[in-house]
Formats: sequence, C-alpha cells, structure tokens
Amino acid sequence: MARLGRSTWAFGERQVAVMAAATVAGSLEGQGPLSDAFDVVLDDDRVGQDTWERAEQWMFRRAAGLACEKAGTPPESLDLVIGADLNAQLTSFFIGLRDLARPMLGVYSACASICEALAVSGLAVSTGFADVVLAGTSSHTCTAERQFRYPTEYGVQRPPTAQRTVTGAGAAVIARGRGPWQITHATIGEITDFGVKSPWEMGAAMAPAACDTLRRHLDDTGRSLDDYDLVVTGDLGRVGSNILRNLLVEEGVAKPDIVAARVFDCGALIYREDQPEVFSGGSGAACSTLVTFGHLFREMQRGRIRRLLLCATGALLSQVSAQQGETIPAISHAIAFERGD
Amino acid sequence: MARLGRSTWAFGERQVAVMAAATVAGSLEGQGPLSDAFDVVLDDDRVGQDTWERAEQWMFRRAAGLACEKAGTPPESLDLVIGADLNAQLTSFFIGLRDLARPMLGVYSACASICEALAVSGLAVSTGFADVVLAGTSSHTCTAERQFRYPTEYGVQRPPTAQRTVTGAGAAVIARGRGPWQITHATIGEITDFGVKSPWEMGAAMAPAACDTLRRHLDDTGRSLDDYDLVVTGDLGRVGSNILRNLLVEEGVAKPDIVAARVFDCGALIYREDQPEVFSGGSGAACSTLVTFGHLFREMQRGRIRRLLLCATGALLSQVSAQQGETIPAISHAIAFERGD
Repeated sequence: MARLGRSTWAFGERQVAVMAAATVAGSLEGQGPLSDAFDVVLDDDRVGQDTWERAEQWMFRRAAGLACEKAGTPPESLDLVIGADLNAQLTSFFIGLRDLARPMLGVYSACASICEALAVSGLAVSTGFADVVLAGTSSHTCTAERQFRYPTEYGVQRPPTAQRTVTGAGAAVIARGRGPWQITHATIGEITDFGVKSPWEMGAAMAPAACDTLRRHLDDTGRSLDDYDLVVTGDLGRVGSNILRNLLVEEGVAKPDIVAARVFDCGALIYREDQPEVFSGGSGAACSTLVTFGHLFREMQRGRIRRLLLCATGALLSQVSAQQGETIPAISHAIAFERGD
Repeated sequence: MARLGRSTWAFGERQVAVMAAATVAGSLEGQGPLSDAFDVVLDDDRVGQDTWERAEQWMFRRAAGLACEKAGTPPESLDLVIGADLNAQLTSFFIGLRDLARPMLGVYSACASICEALAVSGLAVSTGFADVVLAGTSSHTCTAERQFRYPTEYGVQRPPTAQRTVTGAGAAVIARGRGPWQITHATIGEITDFGVKSPWEMGAAMAPAACDTLRRHLDDTGRSLDDYDLVVTGDLGRVGSNILRNLLVEEGVAKPDIVAARVFDCGALIYREDQPEVFSGGSGAACSTLVTFGHLFREMQRGRIRRLLLCATGALLSQVSAQQGETIPAISHAIAFERGD
C-alpha cells in the first residue's frame, strides 16, 4: 500500500478484492450486444413505480441486494456503503438504500463516480478501516434527461453527438484479501476544461480528462498501455472515444496501433449502433458500472482479460450551469483491476 | 489508527492535523454574533458576479486560497482536494475550484458534507495515501432556496420552523502529524427517516440522525458526553436542537443537565434570534463549517475548548423528491477534534 507519483493509490496485488458484483439493466440495455452479461434485465424501465426516480431507486436497491447475495454478505455486515447517482443531491443512492441502516458515504464525480466509489472503498479496505464495503452507482435515462437537459415528455430532438443515459444500476462487494477480481490501483482525476458548453457534446468535453488521467496513471505506475489487456473509458461514446484515441497518439502516450487495439469505451460497447436513439453511445453513472461489472468481469473470469484499466469519465455540469452558459469541466478517475487467482 | 466498534475511525491523537482553516461569510452572517470569527465578511452576497451560483463559486475559491495561504501550502502541493456543496452536481465545488489542477473527490451528505470531507481526508492522511489535503464546503442562501424550495424572487413566506441557508464557504488544510487542531475520530452516519416530508422542517427531520450518530460515537469510543467540552450539531436550528436534547435524554444518552451544558447547534449559534428572516436558525453545508472553522477553532486556540465533537447533520432531500411527496432521510457524521499542543 502506497501512494505512487502524483495521484495514484497502489493497494497491492492481493489486498483489495471485488468479492461479487451485480447489475440491473434497463430494457434497451438488455437488447444490446451485452444483454446476457447482466444479472437482471428489465422489461419495463419503470418497474411498476409511480415515478422514474423511484424506478431508479428500486434498481439501485436491487443491485445492492443482489451483490450482497452473490458475495454471501448479509447487508447488516457491511462496514460502509459508498455510492452515487446523477440526480441532484444523490437521491437515488440515499433514498434507494435508506433501509440498509449501515454507515453511508455519498460521492460524486458525475459518470466517473463508480471509480471514485471504488477508490475510496479500496482506501478504507486496504488500510483496515473497513472490512467489507458495498460500492455502486445508478442512472436512468428519464431521470437524467430531466436533470440535465429537458423533460423527456418534450421529445426534444437530439444531435448525433448526443449520448443516451444508460438505465440501470450496479453494485459490488469489496473486501480485504483475495477474490475473483482484485483492485490494485486507483488514480484520482484532476479537472480539465476545454471550453465545451453544449450538454450534447459530453464526449468532446470529457475526452481530455480521460487522456490526462490515463497519462498520469501510466506515469505514476511506470506502466505502458501494453501492460493492460484492455483500457476502457466510461462513457465518451463513439465521438468522444475517437477524440481520445487521437489525443493519445498526438500526446505520445502510445502508438496508433496500440491505441486501436487496447482502448475502448463502455458507452460504445453497451449499445449496437443501430439501436434507436442511442446516437453516439451510452453515458451515465451506470454505463461503465454495467459494462465493467457485467461484461468485463465475465471476460476476466473467462481468462480473456487479465489486467483491465477503467477510466470512468464525468462531465461536471448541471442544468443550471449549462443554462448559465458555463463551460463543462470534466474529470476522470482510473481503477486498475486484475483477475484474481 | 483503527476502526472502533461499528462505524468509528480512530486516527490516533497526533496523526491528523488541521494546519489552517479559512472562512468567507455572507453579509447577514457577518452581522451575527460570530462576525469577528470569520476571515472575510462580504458586504454583497453576489460579490460582483452575474449569478448567485458564480458568487458561491467565488467564495469557495477564496476560502480555499486563504486556507492554503494561512497553512503556507501552495495549492500545487495539495495531494487531494475534497469538497461538497448543495447545488445539484456539486457545481460550486467543481467549477469553483476547477483551476486548482489537483486530484479532486466530490462528496455529498447534504449539510453533513464537511464531516464526510474531513473523514475521508483523515483516512487518506492517516494512512499515508495523501500528505496534504484541502477539505471544504460552501452554501448560499439564494442558490439553495432555488435548489430546494422556490426561487428567492417569488418571496415565498416561510414558517417559523424554516431555516436560513448560510451564505459562505470554509476550507481547511489537513496534513499528517501535529498542528493547531487534531482530528482524532470520525464516525460515519447511517440514515434515519422518521417520515418528515416538509422541506421547512429540516430540524425535525435531522434530529434523530444526530442522536443516532452521537450515541454510536460514544458507544464506539467508550466515551461519554462529559468527555467533550462541547458537542455541536450542524444545523438543526433552535427547533431541531430542542428535539435532539429531548431525544438524548429520553434515550438515556445523558442526563438533562449534561445535555443542557454540552450540546449546542451551529445553526443556533450563527445568527441572533432577532436577525431578519433567520427563523429557527442557520442551515446549509457552510453552516457548521463557518462556525467550526471560524468560531470554535478560535475558542480552542484560546484554551476554552479542549475537545470538540462536531455532528454535522444532513437532510437528504431534493426538490424532485420533495415534490414527489418523498419523506426526508437524514444523516449525521461526527468528527472529534482536539486542541493541538
């Protein structure tokens, strides 16, 4: 356990384990290429609730309950619950999990929140301040559109650079020692702001943050892109992911063929391009969580990925900041995973 | 360094120091009984900005800069910046401090956020994952009223149980070792929800959370109320503070005379009762921060308080959750401070 370089926490190879992870996916996510990677796929994104917000809270609660079940951890033995969502004042996390009656920490880095939650979990677990932590995030396309842009009922037209907020929730149980997946490093992001103002251009706003954090992670750890079987960003979408690939080459982080072979984006992976209204791809606090906890963890178990770097990406705007003409600061935190033995 | 009981982190007596703290207070706060405890008192709560939000961001930036100055810490040597505010998506923190270019973690527990920020700072510093951390919060009465209730321009009448969101910001530089103030313990709160639905009744919604965390802190540490010279809650206001005092006696936490002598509330301390429109007292993420970093830290330096427990309190509602008729979950985190040598 140590701090490496400017901003990376190294937890050691077998100190912090993901014991189990669970995912609940919305209906469109369940029709995508990763459909069979999720534990629960919903037919109805409202799951019988009277508001979209309560539906999202239900998903968070279901994912948390499932993760505890899969880990064999009764919720009452959790030392800490760390989570986030995109709703103002994190109501999906706090209201969704209010019955847990365990110590709770709300965190927020927009769609990079799952990495912040896992980083703080790793910090608490690796140092013995907690033995078992639950970490998770949720998002819902209908709560997020209302939160950041327009009520979905308006039917506002979206440009091709827009992204669809992923509907779903994911949670993981983190504990000290060895498990199916290890968390080995966390790199805490810094803000970049390249002046993008449009909430329909999140990929462009966030790509520089992903580049910055990825470069800093490699500097801090002395690793190169080649040391990872896969590097995934959180939700740059196809547009933002292309910007990132160009940036990585321009800034000399890696050669084009390495970048093309190694760097992918959860927002581009979660939907097929021909699915309705997915535009540039997925986004949202659940996007990287669903793809990582569902699809990529399974790929690691199958032996196809040994070492994975998740650089989740967050656009730090609000409806008010967008309406006030503010530029969009962005942040990216990275978590390095290894296959457990 | 150890975990005590269910949910308390013990950092040791001389491991985590507050090296300096700075406060920026709004005009009404500057006319209250603690006016000379603040580093900066504003004449104009808009500080020449074109929006209330930008004014709040300015205050956060000013408090952060001042704290670094007082600590002799150049911002570029901060290992971590941890903060929160009440605006959706923490825009005051992220936009206000976006130029720092240091690793950032957004946290959120509503008005209990300063304790969460200090707890995570203590965790990072005591374990060597960070050497120097900046932690802070801000709130602004005009951004918060718009955020949680109604635009201030409506001039909505408020009942006597209402509280006034404190305008201001505070930040502290936390480092390993000894300083003028030590952080010795953090108790992480659990959610309580007693069914209060009105956003004008925050004190009633939050008092049970403060009682729960205070009791758990005492259980975990084996301490009694008598071990503290002062226990302050964050922002229960006069109404909520009376509820808490009754609860503490009813639940057998301490006898009435001890409670009356030891337990106070930052929301009741920050304004005089006869100040205009303060109703039951102050609230907001800056309330406990201003009172603690300004007034109480000075009282500790003057030798009037040796050991202080801050139980900041947060009401986990949003405008949407209130409008959807949701009850208000509440949380309280506690931080124990000791006078440094």
